[in-house]
Amino acid sequence: MVPVAPAPDLPTVEQSIDAAVHRHVEDFLARYLTERRAELPELARTFAQAVDALSDFALRGGKRLRPTFAWWGWRAAGGEADGPRARAVLHAITALELIQTCALVHDDIMDASELRRGRPTVHVRFREAHRAGAWLGDPERFGTAAAILLGDLALAWADDMFESAELEPAMRAAARGPWQAMRAEMFAGQYLDVLAQAEGDESEERALGVARLKTAAYTVERPLHMGVAFAGAGPDTVEAIKTFGTDIGVAFQLRDDVLGMFGDTEVTGKPAGDDLREGKRTLLMALGLDYATRAGRHADADLMRRALGDPDLRPRTLVRVRELLIDLGVVQELERRIEALTSAALATLDAAGLADPGVTRLRDLALAATRRDR
Amino acid sequence: MVPVAPAPDLPTVEQSIDAAVHRHVEDFLARYLTERRAELPELARTFAQAVDALSDFALRGGKRLRPTFAWWGWRAAGGEADGPRARAVLHAITALELIQTCALVHDDIMDASELRRGRPTVHVRFREAHRAGAWLGDPERFGTAAAILLGDLALAWADDMFESAELEPAMRAAARGPWQAMRAEMFAGQYLDVLAQAEGDESEERALGVARLKTAAYTVERPLHMGVAFAGAGPDTVEAIKTFGTDIGVAFQLRDDVLGMFGDTEVTGKPAGDDLREGKRTLLMALGLDYATRAGRHADADLMRRALGDPDLRPRTLVRVRELLIDLGVVQELERRIEALTSAALATLDAAGLADPGVTRLRDLALAATRRDR
Repeated sequence: MVPVAPAPDLPTVEQSIDAAVHRHVEDFLARYLTERRAELPELARTFAQAVDALSDFALRGGKRLRPTFAWWGWRAAGGEADGPRARAVLHAITALELIQTCALVHDDIMDASELRRGRPTVHVRFREAHRAGAWLGDPERFGTAAAILLGDLALAWADDMFESAELEPAMRAAARGPWQAMRAEMFAGQYLDVLAQAEGDESEERALGVARLKTAAYTVERPLHMGVAFAGAGPDTVEAIKTFGTDIGVAFQLRDDVLGMFGDTEVTGKPAGDDLREGKRTLLMALGLDYATRAGRHADADLMRRALGDPDLRPRTLVRVRELLIDLGVVQELERRIEALTSAALATLDAAGLADPGVTRLRDLALAATRRDR
Repeated sequence: MVPVAPAPDLPTVEQSIDAAVHRHVEDFLARYLTERRAELPELARTFAQAVDALSDFALRGGKRLRPTFAWWGWRAAGGEADGPRARAVLHAITALELIQTCALVHDDIMDASELRRGRPTVHVRFREAHRAGAWLGDPERFGTAAAILLGDLALAWADDMFESAELEPAMRAAARGPWQAMRAEMFAGQYLDVLAQAEGDESEERALGVARLKTAAYTVERPLHMGVAFAGAGPDTVEAIKTFGTDIGVAFQLRDDVLGMFGDTEVTGKPAGDDLREGKRTLLMALGLDYATRAGRHADADLMRRALGDPDLRPRTLVRVRELLIDLGVVQELERRIEALTSAALATLDAAGLADPGVTRLRDLALAATRRDR
């Protein structure tokens, strides 16, 4: 029904897992999606075609950041580089990509996004199939319905994938805590984000709360927590890796805030000023409004407030907001915090007594996630 | 944020499980929701308030049909009435109610339903909270976003609840197959339903496909399959209970079709003719169009076709469609099929060599689900 690209070839990845985590993750993901599609009953043939659109979305692009953090957590806490246990861990953490697939598909509905990584979002694909077929009812509503159901399927399959990994019972039991917490924290973060936009919340506290839950907990802290838990890490290691993950995760979000405002579209893949146009309540804007108000620069604060969530934001206004954020010292403050969080995180990592090559790779990942030219 | 009724009291249910399956299910469900809410991080306080709206929805009303079928499947296949294994089974099958919570919350978005069981749907509650607060942005979009996220949370918690039941490993392993299949089949059935409405599909085949997946597999067959699997049933018993479940499930849907067209609002809880107004592609309407066309009654077919999905359906048109369905012999044919499916199902059940009181209760459930005055 919805035209899709041919299924990707599934060559066995010849490099070691350490040398190409993301390729191994993609390989597992492609195999899993193919198997589950094949299991669908004959009655559900048209649904299987819709599932192709989901697979296509899940398999094209993405940095596979969450499984990558989880893998290096496992390795740093002493997990093997290969063998049955390592492959079971890889299988289980690949499920993080299906959670992310659900999050993105549903997020794109909520934000009414037309494009993701330069291609039509899932709800847009189905809306357009409806239009092309001149079907009955509202194309928008059909697209939304299909994307809700496919996101739901990805979420259910994420759990199935996690549970079907051939982990030893103690390994699975240890990782179930962070697995459960991560999903609840992700939905909580998304909700706080949507609510902050609706309420027009300007507080630093709310912006940091969203960064903590939506980015730090979901993207870095909990995947790392799962990784070390698989390796049987004790409470001190768990605590250290969580602290490291939270600090890096928040720094990562602050870097995202800065790039979302000042970044090059070619690098970020998003139109410049998109966060501003969408009314995202970032720490960058919370501090901007706070600093302007405290400096008695009420006209500047009002200008920023009006720009936040303005769908027709003019380029000149974007330029002016950027100038203000620099002039008020907000960018400098964010850079200072990114630097401080990263330093603290690396110190925590160094003191945690973890093993190489895991520690080195976690250090590299931390620096890559927070550097200016990310 | 969204005002909710006070949390229900949680008295321990004093009756035996056999005597009050649905009350025990509600008790487990209430406890589980309370525990999970309490675990949410302090940062997610406003999300916890949103979760109250979800709990409120999940705990008010509902026949708890899926756990009830699963429980009697367990008992019929020799599972104990009480004790640790029985309670673990009850815990696991209560998770079916969280799947159903997700299905209903998301279904209400897709159908743009304002009411469910006489109360505002979840997306409507959040839309109205947005309006009441005169918040920023589109109230409709906020309501949709909140309801998507809360439905997602219910789905994730369903898996967590299933996995947290203290089942023996062999019991869990046996039930995981139907648990996985059920969720995929439910989303497939929902998708086929939405697609059939969009495509204006008039085929009997499609209508039966939706009934098989959305009602039979999801509501009856797979819950029963889980129940007998927990009890360690062999392949013959599994096959028999699945056949029984499919037949009863389809008969249940056909009865629903008839009640949706002819039923008393006070009994069904839905406005008369709602299926017709929403353009549901039921077997009732598929046969109606088919019989009219084959009888050369093209004007009658056109009248029914125009009524299907007409949001402004007039009472007199509804009456006329009802008359046509009787006159064409469609209602008689549906009654014949319900009767045949129910008889076949009961014969399968009788031959399956299952144990009482399970068999008797399954027989009663089958009759209750398919009888005229349901």
